[in-house]
Amino acid sequence: MAKMTPRTLSGFMELLPAPQQQMERIMEVLRETYSLYGFTPLDTPVIEASDVLLAKAGGETEKQIYRFTKGDSDLSLRFDLTVPLAKYVALHYNELSFPFRRYQIGKVYRGERAQRGRFREFYQADIDIIGDGKLSIVNEAEIPAIIYKTFSTLGLKRFQIRVNNRKILNGFYAMLGLTEKAGDVMRTVDKLDKIGPDKVKTILVEDFAVAEDDADQILKFIAITGGNETVLKALEGYRGKNEMFDEGLSELNTVVKYLSAFGVPAENFAVDLTIARGLDYYTGTVYETTLLDHPEIGSVCSGGRYDNLAEYYTDKPLPGAGISIGLTRLFYVLGEQGMLNPDLPTAPADVLILPMTDDLSAAIELATRLRENGIRTQLHCEEKKFKAKISYADKLKIPYVIFLGEDEINAGIVACKDMTTGEQTKLEPAATVYRIKAGLAERAKGSVILG
Amino acid sequence: MAKMTPRTLSGFMELLPAPQQQMERIMEVLRETYSLYGFTPLDTPVIEASDVLLAKAGGETEKQIYRFTKGDSDLSLRFDLTVPLAKYVALHYNELSFPFRRYQIGKVYRGERAQRGRFREFYQADIDIIGDGKLSIVNEAEIPAIIYKTFSTLGLKRFQIRVNNRKILNGFYAMLGLTEKAGDVMRTVDKLDKIGPDKVKTILVEDFAVAEDDADQILKFIAITGGNETVLKALEGYRGKNEMFDEGLSELNTVVKYLSAFGVPAENFAVDLTIARGLDYYTGTVYETTLLDHPEIGSVCSGGRYDNLAEYYTDKPLPGAGISIGLTRLFYVLGEQGMLNPDLPTAPADVLILPMTDDLSAAIELATRLRENGIRTQLHCEEKKFKAKISYADKLKIPYVIFLGEDEINAGIVACKDMTTGEQTKLEPAATVYRIKAGLAERAKGSVILG
Repeated sequence: MAKMTPRTLSGFMELLPAPQQQMERIMEVLRETYSLYGFTPLDTPVIEASDVLLAKAGGETEKQIYRFTKGDSDLSLRFDLTVPLAKYVALHYNELSFPFRRYQIGKVYRGERAQRGRFREFYQADIDIIGDGKLSIVNEAEIPAIIYKTFSTLGLKRFQIRVNNRKILNGFYAMLGLTEKAGDVMRTVDKLDKIGPDKVKTILVEDFAVAEDDADQILKFIAITGGNETVLKALEGYRGKNEMFDEGLSELNTVVKYLSAFGVPAENFAVDLTIARGLDYYTGTVYETTLLDHPEIGSVCSGGRYDNLAEYYTDKPLPGAGISIGLTRLFYVLGEQGMLNPDLPTAPADVLILPMTDDLSAAIELATRLRENGIRTQLHCEEKKFKAKISYADKLKIPYVIFLGEDEINAGIVACKDMTTGEQTKLEPAATVYRIKAGLAERAKGSVILG
Repeated sequence: MAKMTPRTLSGFMELLPAPQQQMERIMEVLRETYSLYGFTPLDTPVIEASDVLLAKAGGETEKQIYRFTKGDSDLSLRFDLTVPLAKYVALHYNELSFPFRRYQIGKVYRGERAQRGRFREFYQADIDIIGDGKLSIVNEAEIPAIIYKTFSTLGLKRFQIRVNNRKILNGFYAMLGLTEKAGDVMRTVDKLDKIGPDKVKTILVEDFAVAEDDADQILKFIAITGGNETVLKALEGYRGKNEMFDEGLSELNTVVKYLSAFGVPAENFAVDLTIARGLDYYTGTVYETTLLDHPEIGSVCSGGRYDNLAEYYTDKPLPGAGISIGLTRLFYVLGEQGMLNPDLPTAPADVLILPMTDDLSAAIELATRLRENGIRTQLHCEEKKFKAKISYADKLKIPYVIFLGEDEINAGIVACKDMTTGEQTKLEPAATVYRIKAGLAERAKGSVILG
């Protein structure tokens, strides 16, 4: 028979078992942490009706959509988890209680140009808090606090959550009479890191007809950096000139205050006036998160406050605050940078039992006992040489191998080899279970991410 | 602005938060149980190249595929998790160790005619053990034992795993010289429950030209029922006439013996000669699982032994044994039948904190403390009336509400209301944590499924 060469599409992550175990562990930390903060898990379809999904989209997004017909239906794959959330909340509005806090970890699809580290199918891990009409500013501090907790639990240390407020930016541009041009200006300012202040000024003046004085004002404004206290103090100098600005500054002060109360250390967050988030969507606090040792990666976790989650579906004002981790890309980067802890278990099992007798009853009984104790156990009953079975355990990094022969069965003991130390014990089953559990607890101690 | 009416496509399950929590709990039990048996989690793309995915498919399957083009690529959504596994194992053959035990819980897509309880997007939860060239018969007993363990852990009691062996069927039909017609005969026999023996005989004789004597032999054969011992004994009467039959009978005896050794009670499995599994794919042991009180639902978990997992991709013989739970459909049925335990927590949080002071520091500190103790905690800082907040906790079934006012903060105590009993305590934080944890442990005691 002619064979089809198996292949996986480019831009689609498909992990081998060991890295997949690391990915699963990360997802578990996300689920657990999000749950601790009172977020409920949600799962929405990958496919939506195109008219529903694209009610808002346009431009670049629309080009990337996986859109197709099936029968009479015009269908699209979701390209983020926010639009499905908006649909969900509008559709189930009467059955939900607000504030509605949900997390969702799911695959989304964007037909981007394939390139290294860019994915067409990727996981996003989102949290959002949706209010009915109103939503307290406290949520805008709690959201980044949750991200801090999540990343810390994963073991990440050198990261910084950058915080800004769109009202400050919009208020500032209003002071200069640049409200109409604010979008263009912010997009230009966003390039500051890449092209430098001179180039930014040139573009502002030449491409967008910003007065030279105003351009200088803008550069001066975004040059406000330093510790959070310093930045907040410098911003006070602009107070009283624009109502929106003042509101934004008060909000930012509140968010910074509560971020501390939530236990986020000063070194893990920074007020950064260059953060705007491209989308028009955000109306208040905005966040980006960078890995301090890998700024070239850009933001690995972004979000903010928005006033109308579901304006394309309902007249009800549904303000919210949310943030999204680009999980697949983050995982890829962590792997590339050697930041995934290789010492955490990636084996499919904790124990491999090698029965040495024809009658397997004793081996099965022991496997059952280990499993009842929460020990992941595999019976190896294949017709293979002893050496091949040991090498199997070795390759898969299964930490313990148990040999069960006639002698051991008759003596009521278990021969157990610690594959790391080579040490072999012959103990009663209960003592073996105890020893294995202690060893596994020790091995599970590290965090998923190094540094 | 004109609004788009939000809607979810028919045939796509989208759960409200409370049932979603139940679904998550079921998935967690599956992940944990599968892991205990040494299966490693796998995640493959939802989209595959059509030529790769459909290398084998044809007929009904192909019609149901979600297939489309994006740029120059002919793409399809996966319709099961077996073909992606075959591709994965063939593609990564050199990087895997065999036997390769993997589980995968993922969404698959079939554009079936929409009808109640039928889904176009649904979860399958699969386990498979793949051997390299050979695979021990013990695996064919372990697979249904894992399903028994999974369903029991979920709380299901009245279910039966029905076991047969394709070699017995093929051997039997060979005895009658009906090998060529075996497929048609088995498909007809499969309708026995629905149309009765007389109709089966008529179809066999009239539509498929089976001799009347042979049809009687077939009906006599499939009428072999009773306890496992009885059936196995009756089958002994056919031994010695066909080599394949004898081999199948020996395998079935072994599987039944080990099923007991794995601790599966006699009432939860049955040798059933009418089970064939439609697919030509299976070559040895086959399984179906029925809910005893809801036979009308059909099999909720099916699988079996196959000789060539990846024959369309590789010349390497990769025998395997696997089983698949149709999770979305099972969940739907359990809900319809009122079999989902309503007493297990479905709230997004265990505790709702109502701060009664302007300064939230104490409330945030308490929330942090509760979360550090593994208690899922939500701070309710919205500007709402006290009564509205209590009603919020009530609606969401949040079990504990904590009031934190000036008096409590000054006295170093916490006022905590058990929303089920109405009982209110004023205790120190540590004592409150202890009490809440004890209460939560009590509430979490039941199983997900009733009966």
